[in-house]
Parts: sequence; structure tokens; C-alpha cells
Amino acid sequence: MSLVLHSYWRSSCSWRVRIALHHKALDFESVAVHLVADGGQQHSEGHRSINPMREIPVLMVGGVPIAQSMAILEFLEESYPEPALLPQGPLERARVRQMAELINSGIQPIQNLRVMQRLGRDFDLPKSEQMRWSKGWIDSGFQAFNSLVMKHGGTFCFRDTLSYADLCLVPQLYNARRFDVDLSPYPKLLEIEALLNEMPAFIKAHPDQQADAP
Amino acid sequence: MSLVLHSYWRSSCSWRVRIALHHKALDFESVAVHLVADGGQQHSEGHRSINPMREIPVLMVGGVPIAQSMAILEFLEESYPEPALLPQGPLERARVRQMAELINSGIQPIQNLRVMQRLGRDFDLPKSEQMRWSKGWIDSGFQAFNSLVMKHGGTFCFRDTLSYADLCLVPQLYNARRFDVDLSPYPKLLEIEALLNEMPAFIKAHPDQQADAP
Repeated sequence: MSLVLHSYWRSSCSWRVRIALHHKALDFESVAVHLVADGGQQHSEGHRSINPMREIPVLMVGGVPIAQSMAILEFLEESYPEPALLPQGPLERARVRQMAELINSGIQPIQNLRVMQRLGRDFDLPKSEQMRWSKGWIDSGFQAFNSLVMKHGGTFCFRDTLSYADLCLVPQLYNARRFDVDLSPYPKLLEIEALLNEMPAFIKAHPDQQADAP
Repeated sequence: MSLVLHSYWRSSCSWRVRIALHHKALDFESVAVHLVADGGQQHSEGHRSINPMREIPVLMVGGVPIAQSMAILEFLEESYPEPALLPQGPLERARVRQMAELINSGIQPIQNLRVMQRLGRDFDLPKSEQMRWSKGWIDSGFQAFNSLVMKHGGTFCFRDTLSYADLCLVPQLYNARRFDVDLSPYPKLLEIEALLNEMPAFIKAHPDQQADAP
């Protein structure tokens, strides 16, 4: 089945999916959806018809649109199980999903662009306050994520198996730097990131490598 | 393996998990974590040791703590597959997960108590503005969720199969009413809710039925 990813070069949720697609060596096309140009192309009628939530990523699978990065990762894992991005045992899989969800539902949704835009629109908060908001959520989330990695990590976030948790970590670290989060309390996360950044799937999936990067 | 759920009667994420546990007829104990008393019992050292994110629910599985409601639902589905809460086909499963994630990562994290508290603490916004914030996010999220249900729903949110999407819908509707969201544009969601509210698992899992309800 043909795979077409609607994404934006710097979107952290799109980036997770790109890593999975490259890691599983799947052929896919990319369609750029610019989150800022034209008032945000995710609000266009065309995009809303494939995702009423007006977000990216959306993976078109043989023409059928699937949104939400975690739903897409699970779909890819079920449809193309090797190489795996989840461990075998149910408790181990639960731990990886917990770590991924800590970022997916616990950090990213509260620090992202649409939330910042609404802080500005609804409460007239300047950009600097919007940045402080996002920075604070990333920081408290990373404290918790780091605790889990210190307990369960190995070469990667969960033991020595590449997993969803690593796919979520790398883009969230990139966002952390954009918002000036102090990462010095997390040497283990940075060590894992350095290793991941040398893997071909992570190199190919990096925002700077995308056709729509400025 | 013993199952112990650390939860709060009115927490929407805990509620999802309770429905799954009851639907699968699993024996479990409950431990109440009061999100407001004592400055929030989720911040206690004891709770942080089982979830550094300081959140509920946490399901203790033979003494091993698993946090994040979606990770717990996937764990229960893999460990106790019948009766199922996901359909069979990969694209169908993806659609259900997309719908669940729309609420799990797209609505709930942005409208919850800790976000409202931080709007008050950081920006000195009064309770009425915090409520307007949460109401707005639920409203725009429901517009999108409703589109998906109009397209893919049947007796339940996804066709005629009870799924994660229904487990997420009912608690989110409860939150919508707390924040005074106008639900009249969503008769289909209310129709599904009425049916779900008659099912034993949903009756047992309701906040008012919990030992820690006031």
C-alpha cells in the first residue's frame, strides 16, 4: 500500500513518524503542510478533510488518512513488525508506551504552537511569556522522563532496544533547545541522543533534511 | 497478577481505565489519590516513586507501576484480549487509536487541573478565565471528534464495536459539562453516551460510584 506523509519539517510529531518510516525502511512520499504560511495550511479545507483536528502528521495509507502520531506508530508496528520499535513482554511494552505518552500527551500538546498562539490571542500574553510557558512544561516533563530513563534506560531510553520512547525523545530535545530549557541536569538523555543522532533513520528524519526546510 | 489502580474519582484518565477493567471483568483494588487535598497527594514522595510525572492513573501490576492511561489500556488489551476494545484490522485499529488520542493528547492535557492551576499561578488569571480556556479546547476538540464519529461511527464511536474511543468519550463529556460546553451540536455523541451509560462497565466506573467520591 502506498504511504504518503503529510507533515511539516519542524513538527515534532511528524518527526517521530518519519524516524519510524525510515527505520522500517518503508518507501513513502512527503507532502508539506506549512503550519505558519497562509495563516496555517493545516486549516485549509483540503487538510481538514483528511484530519478535522487540523493537525499533522497525517499518514495516507493507500488513500486512507490516519492522524495522531501514536496511532500511526502503532499502525506501522502492527503492519511492518520488523525491525521492531516495541519490546516483546507486555509490561516492557507498557513501560515504553508510558514513556512515549509522557512526551506525547504530557509535554508536547501543552507547549506547542497552537497553545502558544492561543495564550497570545486570548490573554494578550507577549511572545516572551508564551516561551516561558512552553519552557516550563518541557522542563517539568523532562524531570519525570529522565527519572524513568535513569531507572529503565540502557543504551536507549528503554534498555538496549530502540523504541517509541527514543522516537519521542529526540524531537522533544530539539523543542527544548528552541525554548532554552537547561538540559545540563540530563546527561543520560543527551548521551542517548548523541547515539541516536548517528543512526541512519534519525539522520534522514531530521528537520534540516526535509524538502520543506527553509 | 494482582491489579491495584491508583486513581481519583473524578479524574477522566482514571475513569477510562476503570471502564476497561470492569469491561474485561478483572478483579482490582483501588487506592484513592486526592488531587486537591494536602496540596495534591499526587505530589507526595510515595506517589512520585510510582509515577515521577505526579499523575494518575497508575496501575500496579503485581507490584510494577504502569502510568499513562493509553499505555494501561494497551497493556490490558494485550494481556486480557477478550472482550476486545480494539477492532481486528490494522487500519480500523489505527482509526480507533486516532479517535482516542484526539481526546487523550488533543483535549484532556490542555484542559486539565494542572494547566488551569498554572494559568492562575503564572499569569494571575482568575478562575473564570481558566474555565474559559478549558471550555474552548474541549469545544474545538469535540468539533473534530464529532466529525470522525459522523464518518466512522455506528452504535458506538467506531462502527458497532465498543472501543478505546468510547472509553475516552464518556469522561470527556463529563468534563465538557463541568466547563459548560454547549453539547447541542453533537446529538450523535449524546446518543452514543446514553447507550454507553446503560452498560454495566460504564455504570460501575462512573465517578459517583467510587469509594472516594464525596
